[in-house]
Amino acid sequence: MIRLIRVGFYLFPMEILEALYTRRSIRKFEFKNISDEVLRKILRAGMSAPNSGGQRLWQFVVIKDRDQMEKIIAAYPYAKMLRDVPIAIIVCFDKSREKYEERWQMDCATASLNILLAAHGLGLGGVWLEIYPIDERVKAIRESFDMPEYVVPFAAFGIGHPAEEKPELDRYEESLIHYDSW
Amino acid sequence: MIRLIRVGFYLFPMEILEALYTRRSIRKFEFKNISDEVLRKILRAGMSAPNSGGQRLWQFVVIKDRDQMEKIIAAYPYAKMLRDVPIAIIVCFDKSREKYEERWQMDCATASLNILLAAHGLGLGGVWLEIYPIDERVKAIRESFDMPEYVVPFAAFGIGHPAEEKPELDRYEESLIHYDSW
Repeated sequence: MIRLIRVGFYLFPMEILEALYTRRSIRKFEFKNISDEVLRKILRAGMSAPNSGGQRLWQFVVIKDRDQMEKIIAAYPYAKMLRDVPIAIIVCFDKSREKYEERWQMDCATASLNILLAAHGLGLGGVWLEIYPIDERVKAIRESFDMPEYVVPFAAFGIGHPAEEKPELDRYEESLIHYDSW
Repeated sequence: MIRLIRVGFYLFPMEILEALYTRRSIRKFEFKNISDEVLRKILRAGMSAPNSGGQRLWQFVVIKDRDQMEKIIAAYPYAKMLRDVPIAIIVCFDKSREKYEERWQMDCATASLNILLAAHGLGLGGVWLEIYPIDERVKAIRESFDMPEYVVPFAAFGIGHPAEEKPELDRYEESLIHYDSW
């Protein structure tokens, strides 16, 4: 049942609550390869996300080619960290698969979060690079990756080996909770 | 580092990938209490979700009172399973906390998914009951729980002890993946 995670010489499982609490945005990476097996685990996690009525309206573009990676970098003022990751994943909304209107943002967001959590659980790090709702970025990415008009690139994720450590935070805020009524 | 999860007489950790792959919507529950300590863990997970520019525009209404629970049930054709859960959580968008427009759906979706994953990791089950984008449901829930106009109830989650077992699925679909370009 328990999958063991290799970190250096050690094997250990990352428990789910631990993962939810310790996941942080990673923006510094050390360039090292990621195997196809690990990539598959990450993508499988994305496709395991809850989504509206099981419409699964997402599609994924995996970038490994360095020239293609430069096209993502060019669309942002602050995405140069992608030079240090072996893989980026663009999560896309495929309008042709939409069954229930106005749910696509939540469905793409849940797939995106599962990708980040899986990467974290595998000893990797990820950064969420927003595409939607910035129109010019949607257009630039759609054009750079030959996406048809019915596809909306939602967000890009650089996935790599972390070169920074961030401490666990307790982000619980009692003031944001109401009991039985507002 | 590893938190142990009690399930019956056994203690075990649920590994993060295991959790992502085995999380399913639970719609049948056996009524048993959930401690405040466990509730706090679940809410802390919700507040640990990635969100746009750290705006944390979410708020949470926790329902335990049975009359209040009936008000949620009344807003749906199919929410009677809430009679079998000790707790429901309504994830809300608080417009007064919004800094970056058009991101609130994704931010509420990531908090929602973290709540479901934490519940699953704690041996509990959850069901995502959509509120937004159904206008009449937004109005009914807002009114029933005395929410101000600047609050949009996003979704309600029944959290309880599962009375059904669902098998792990491999939802990986190679046809949804593109490499280096569409």
